[in-house]
Amino acid sequence: MKRFQLLIPVFLMIGLAGALAFAQVDFSKEHNGLLRHVVCFSFKDDAAPADIQKVVDAFADLPNKIPSIVSFECGTNVSPEGLTKGFTHCFVLTFKTAKDRDAYLPHPDHKAFGKVLGPVMKDVFVIDYWTK
Amino acid sequence: MKRFQLLIPVFLMIGLAGALAFAQVDFSKEHNGLLRHVVCFSFKDDAAPADIQKVVDAFADLPNKIPSIVSFECGTNVSPEGLTKGFTHCFVLTFKTAKDRDAYLPHPDHKAFGKVLGPVMKDVFVIDYWTK
Repeated sequence: MKRFQLLIPVFLMIGLAGALAFAQVDFSKEHNGLLRHVVCFSFKDDAAPADIQKVVDAFADLPNKIPSIVSFECGTNVSPEGLTKGFTHCFVLTFKTAKDRDAYLPHPDHKAFGKVLGPVMKDVFVIDYWTK
Repeated sequence: MKRFQLLIPVFLMIGLAGALAFAQVDFSKEHNGLLRHVVCFSFKDDAAPADIQKVVDAFADLPNKIPSIVSFECGTNVSPEGLTKGFTHCFVLTFKTAKDRDAYLPHPDHKAFGKVLGPVMKDVFVIDYWTK
Protein backbone atom coordinates (compact mmCIF):
# COMPACT_ATOMS: atom_id res chain seq x y z
CA MET A 1 0.00 0.00 0.00
CA LYS A 2 2.81 2.37 0.94
CA ARG A 3 4.57 1.60 -2.35
CA PHE A 4 1.31 2.51 -4.15
CA GLN A 5 1.13 5.81 -2.24
CA LEU A 6 4.67 6.61 -3.38
CA LEU A 7 3.60 6.06 -6.97
CA ILE A 8 0.72 8.56 -6.73
CA PRO A 9 2.87 11.59 -7.70
CA VAL A 10 4.20 9.57 -10.68
CA PHE A 11 0.64 8.80 -11.84
CA LEU A 12 -0.26 12.48 -11.35
CA MET A 13 2.69 13.58 -13.47
CA ILE A 14 1.85 11.09 -16.22
CA GLY A 15 -1.77 12.29 -16.16
CA LEU A 16 -0.68 15.94 -16.27
CA ALA A 17 1.67 15.29 -19.19
CA GLY A 18 -1.12 13.53 -21.07
CA ALA A 19 -3.55 16.39 -20.40
CA LEU A 20 -0.96 18.93 -21.62
CA ALA A 21 -0.36 16.91 -24.78
CA PHE A 22 -4.07 16.96 -25.55
CA ALA A 23 -4.40 20.66 -24.66
CA GLN A 24 -1.49 21.56 -26.94
CA VAL A 25 -2.30 24.05 -29.68
CA ASP A 26 -2.50 22.50 -33.14
CA PHE A 27 0.33 24.42 -34.75
CA SER A 28 -0.63 23.13 -38.19
CA LYS A 29 -3.56 25.55 -37.90
CA GLU A 30 -2.01 28.90 -37.02
CA HIS A 31 -5.17 30.88 -37.43
CA ASN A 32 -8.82 30.78 -36.42
CA GLY A 33 -9.95 31.84 -39.88
CA LEU A 34 -9.72 30.30 -43.32
CA LEU A 35 -7.00 30.99 -45.85
CA ARG A 36 -8.39 32.41 -49.10
CA HIS A 37 -6.20 31.99 -52.17
CA VAL A 38 -7.42 34.40 -54.87
CA VAL A 39 -6.08 33.74 -58.38
CA CYS A 40 -6.89 35.79 -61.48
CA PHE A 41 -5.85 35.03 -65.05
CA SER A 42 -5.81 36.88 -68.31
CA PHE A 43 -5.42 34.85 -71.49
CA LYS A 44 -3.48 35.43 -74.68
CA ASP A 45 -5.45 37.23 -77.38
CA ASP A 46 -5.17 34.22 -79.70
CA ALA A 47 -6.15 31.67 -77.01
CA ALA A 48 -9.00 29.49 -78.27
CA PRO A 49 -12.14 29.61 -76.10
CA ALA A 50 -12.02 25.79 -75.94
CA ASP A 51 -8.48 25.94 -74.51
CA ILE A 52 -9.52 28.55 -71.93
CA GLN A 53 -12.41 26.27 -70.95
CA LYS A 54 -9.91 23.41 -70.54
CA VAL A 55 -8.00 25.59 -68.05
CA VAL A 56 -11.19 26.38 -66.10
CA ASP A 57 -12.20 22.71 -66.05
CA ALA A 58 -8.74 21.52 -65.02
CA PHE A 59 -8.59 24.10 -62.20
CA ALA A 60 -12.11 23.20 -61.04
CA ASP A 61 -11.05 19.54 -60.94
CA LEU A 62 -8.17 20.17 -58.51
CA PRO A 63 -10.35 19.98 -55.33
CA ASN A 64 -11.23 16.41 -56.41
CA LYS A 65 -7.52 15.58 -56.48
CA ILE A 66 -6.27 17.72 -53.57
CA PRO A 67 -8.69 17.37 -50.61
CA SER A 68 -6.98 20.15 -48.62
CA ILE A 69 -8.78 22.59 -50.99
CA VAL A 70 -11.86 22.86 -48.78
CA SER A 71 -13.77 25.12 -51.15
CA PHE A 72 -13.43 26.33 -54.72
CA GLU A 73 -15.18 29.11 -56.62
CA CYS A 74 -14.59 30.53 -60.06
CA GLY A 75 -16.21 32.90 -62.47
CA THR A 76 -15.60 35.36 -65.26
CA ASN A 77 -15.54 39.09 -64.68
CA VAL A 78 -18.88 40.92 -64.60
CA SER A 79 -17.66 44.16 -62.99
CA PRO A 80 -18.86 47.31 -64.76
CA GLU A 81 -16.05 49.40 -63.18
CA GLY A 82 -13.24 48.69 -65.66
CA LEU A 83 -10.64 48.12 -62.93
CA THR A 84 -9.68 44.52 -63.76
CA LYS A 85 -6.21 45.32 -65.19
CA GLY A 86 -7.10 43.01 -68.07
CA PHE A 87 -7.84 39.97 -65.88
CA THR A 88 -10.93 38.07 -66.97
CA HIS A 89 -11.14 34.97 -64.76
CA CYS A 90 -11.20 34.76 -60.97
CA PHE A 91 -10.70 31.62 -58.86
CA VAL A 92 -10.93 31.52 -55.06
CA LEU A 93 -9.56 28.45 -53.29
CA THR A 94 -9.89 28.02 -49.53
CA PHE A 95 -7.49 26.19 -47.23
CA LYS A 96 -7.68 25.61 -43.49
CA THR A 97 -3.96 26.10 -42.85
CA ALA A 98 -0.93 27.77 -44.42
CA LYS A 99 0.66 24.30 -44.40
CA ASP A 100 -2.13 23.05 -46.70
CA ARG A 101 -1.63 26.01 -49.06
CA ASP A 102 2.15 25.48 -48.99
CA ALA A 103 1.67 21.78 -49.85
CA TYR A 104 -0.76 22.67 -52.65
CA LEU A 105 1.61 25.04 -54.47
CA PRO A 106 4.20 22.40 -55.50
CA HIS A 107 1.63 19.53 -55.58
CA PRO A 108 2.06 17.30 -58.69
CA ASP A 109 -1.61 17.82 -59.68
CA HIS A 110 -1.19 21.59 -59.37
CA LYS A 111 1.95 21.36 -61.51
CA ALA A 112 0.04 19.29 -64.10
CA PHE A 113 -2.65 22.00 -64.16
CA GLY A 114 0.12 24.53 -64.85
CA LYS A 115 0.92 22.65 -68.06
CA VAL A 116 -2.68 23.12 -69.27
CA LEU A 117 -2.58 26.79 -68.27
CA GLY A 118 0.89 27.77 -69.49
CA PRO A 119 0.36 27.83 -73.27
CA VAL A 120 -2.70 30.14 -73.12
CA MET A 121 -2.06 32.32 -70.04
CA LYS A 122 -1.09 35.97 -70.54
CA ASP A 123 -0.85 37.13 -66.92
CA VAL A 124 -1.59 35.96 -63.37
CA PHE A 125 -2.45 37.79 -60.17
CA VAL A 126 -2.47 36.03 -56.78
CA ILE A 127 -3.35 37.36 -53.35
CA ASP A 128 -3.94 35.26 -50.22
CA TYR A 129 -5.56 36.46 -47.00
CA TRP A 130 -6.91 35.05 -43.77
CA THR A 131 -10.59 35.47 -42.98
CA LYS A 132 -11.32 36.78 -39.48
CA MET B 1 -77.62 41.94 -66.12
CA LYS B 2 -76.74 42.05 -69.82
CA ARG B 3 -74.42 44.99 -69.17
CA PHE B 4 -72.68 42.86 -66.46
CA GLN B 5 -72.27 39.96 -68.92
CA LEU B 6 -70.62 42.33 -71.37
CA LEU B 7 -68.11 43.30 -68.67
CA ILE B 8 -67.08 39.66 -67.97
CA PRO B 9 -64.31 39.60 -70.66
CA VAL B 10 -62.99 42.88 -69.20
CA PHE B 11 -62.82 41.32 -65.70
CA LEU B 12 -61.15 38.23 -67.19
CA MET B 13 -58.51 40.34 -68.91
CA ILE B 14 -57.84 42.36 -65.73
CA GLY B 15 -57.49 39.08 -63.78
CA LEU B 16 -55.18 37.60 -66.42
CA ALA B 17 -52.99 40.71 -66.42
CA GLY B 18 -52.78 40.55 -62.61
CA ALA B 19 -51.85 36.86 -62.67
CA LEU B 20 -49.14 37.52 -65.30
CA ALA B 21 -47.71 40.36 -63.20
CA PHE B 22 -47.39 38.02 -60.21
CA ALA B 23 -45.93 35.19 -62.30
CA GLN B 24 -43.31 37.51 -63.79
CA VAL B 25 -39.68 36.50 -63.19
CA ASP B 26 -37.92 38.64 -60.59
CA PHE B 27 -35.43 40.31 -62.92
CA SER B 28 -33.63 41.89 -59.95
CA LYS B 29 -32.13 38.42 -59.31
CA GLU B 30 -30.73 37.23 -62.63
CA HIS B 31 -28.65 34.43 -61.20
CA ASN B 32 -28.89 31.50 -58.81
CA GLY B 33 -25.45 32.20 -57.33
CA LEU B 34 -23.99 35.04 -55.30
CA LEU B 35 -22.15 38.01 -56.74
CA ARG B 36 -18.59 38.30 -55.36
CA HIS B 37 -17.04 41.75 -55.58
CA VAL B 38 -13.27 41.39 -55.11
CA VAL B 39 -11.39 44.64 -54.40
CA CYS B 40 -7.63 44.96 -53.87
CA PHE B 41 -5.73 48.09 -52.87
CA SER B 42 -2.14 49.15 -52.77
CA PHE B 43 -1.26 52.20 -50.70
CA LYS B 44 1.11 55.09 -51.26
CA ASP B 45 4.61 54.53 -49.90
CA ASP B 46 4.21 57.45 -47.50
CA ALA B 47 0.73 56.41 -46.29
CA ALA B 48 0.67 56.26 -42.48
CA PRO B 49 -0.29 52.82 -41.07
CA ALA B 50 -2.99 54.59 -38.99
CA ASP B 51 -4.51 56.05 -42.18
CA ILE B 52 -4.46 52.63 -43.89
CA GLN B 53 -6.20 51.19 -40.82
CA LYS B 54 -8.84 53.93 -41.11
CA VAL B 55 -9.50 52.75 -44.70
CA VAL B 56 -9.84 49.12 -43.56
CA ASP B 57 -12.16 50.11 -40.69
CA ALA B 58 -14.29 52.37 -42.90
CA PHE B 59 -14.61 49.63 -45.55
CA ALA B 60 -15.49 47.03 -42.89
CA ASP B 61 -18.18 49.37 -41.55
CA LEU B 62 -20.01 49.59 -44.91
CA PRO B 63 -22.06 46.37 -44.38
CA ASN B 64 -23.52 48.06 -41.27
CA LYS B 65 -24.65 50.96 -43.45
CA ILE B 66 -25.54 49.13 -46.68
CA PRO B 67 -27.51 45.95 -45.82
CA SER B 68 -27.38 44.65 -49.42
CA ILE B 69 -23.74 43.69 -48.66
CA VAL B 70 -24.63 40.21 -47.40
CA SER B 71 -21.08 39.28 -46.46
CA PHE B 72 -17.75 41.02 -46.09
CA GLU B 73 -14.22 39.66 -45.75
CA CYS B 74 -10.87 41.41 -45.74
CA GLY B 75 -7.25 40.65 -45.06
CA THR B 76 -3.69 41.55 -45.91
CA ASN B 77 -1.64 39.52 -48.34
CA VAL B 78 0.09 36.40 -47.02
CA SER B 79 0.90 34.78 -50.39
CA PRO B 80 4.49 33.55 -50.72
CA GLU B 81 4.25 33.54 -54.54
CA GLY B 82 5.10 37.20 -55.25
CA LEU B 83 2.30 37.60 -57.80
CA THR B 84 0.34 40.39 -56.08
CA LYS B 85 1.32 43.17 -58.54
CA GLY B 86 2.02 45.32 -55.49
CA PHE B 87 -1.48 44.96 -53.99
CA THR B 88 -1.45 44.40 -50.24
CA HIS B 89 -5.09 44.40 -49.10
CA CYS B 90 -7.96 42.26 -50.34
CA PHE B 91 -11.67 42.81 -49.64
CA VAL B 92 -14.45 40.50 -50.82
CA LEU B 93 -18.02 41.79 -50.67
CA THR B 94 -20.97 39.59 -51.56
CA PHE B 95 -24.27 40.72 -53.08
CA LYS B 96 -27.33 38.68 -53.98
CA THR B 97 -28.11 40.56 -57.19
CA ALA B 98 -26.36 42.74 -59.78
CA LYS B 99 -28.95 45.39 -58.93
CA ASP B 100 -27.66 45.43 -55.32
CA ARG B 101 -24.06 45.78 -56.53
CA ASP B 102 -25.10 48.51 -58.99
CA ALA B 103 -26.87 50.40 -56.17
CA TYR B 104 -23.84 50.00 -53.89
CA LEU B 105 -21.32 51.53 -56.33
CA PRO B 106 -22.78 55.09 -56.29
CA HIS B 107 -24.22 54.74 -52.73
CA PRO B 108 -23.52 57.86 -50.59
CA ASP B 109 -21.85 55.75 -47.86
CA HIS B 110 -19.60 54.10 -50.47
CA LYS B 111 -18.75 57.55 -51.84
CA ALA B 112 -17.95 58.73 -48.28
CA PHE B 113 -15.61 55.74 -47.90
CA GLY B 114 -13.90 56.81 -51.13
CA LYS B 115 -12.97 60.09 -49.45
CA VAL B 116 -11.17 58.17 -46.65
CA LEU B 117 -9.45 55.95 -49.23
CA GLY B 118 -8.51 58.52 -51.86
CA PRO B 119 -5.64 60.35 -50.12
CA VAL B 120 -3.69 57.15 -49.32
CA MET B 121 -4.56 54.78 -52.19
CA LYS B 122 -1.94 54.02 -54.84
CA ASP B 123 -3.82 51.53 -57.02
CA VAL B 124 -7.05 49.52 -57.10
CA PHE B 125 -8.01 46.23 -58.72
CA VAL B 126 -11.64 45.07 -58.95
CA ILE B 127 -13.08 41.85 -60.35
CA ASP B 128 -16.65 40.61 -59.86
CA TYR B 129 -17.90 37.11 -60.55
CA TRP B 130 -20.96 34.96 -59.95
CA THR B 131 -20.64 31.87 -57.80
CA LYS B 132 -22.17 28.75 -59.35
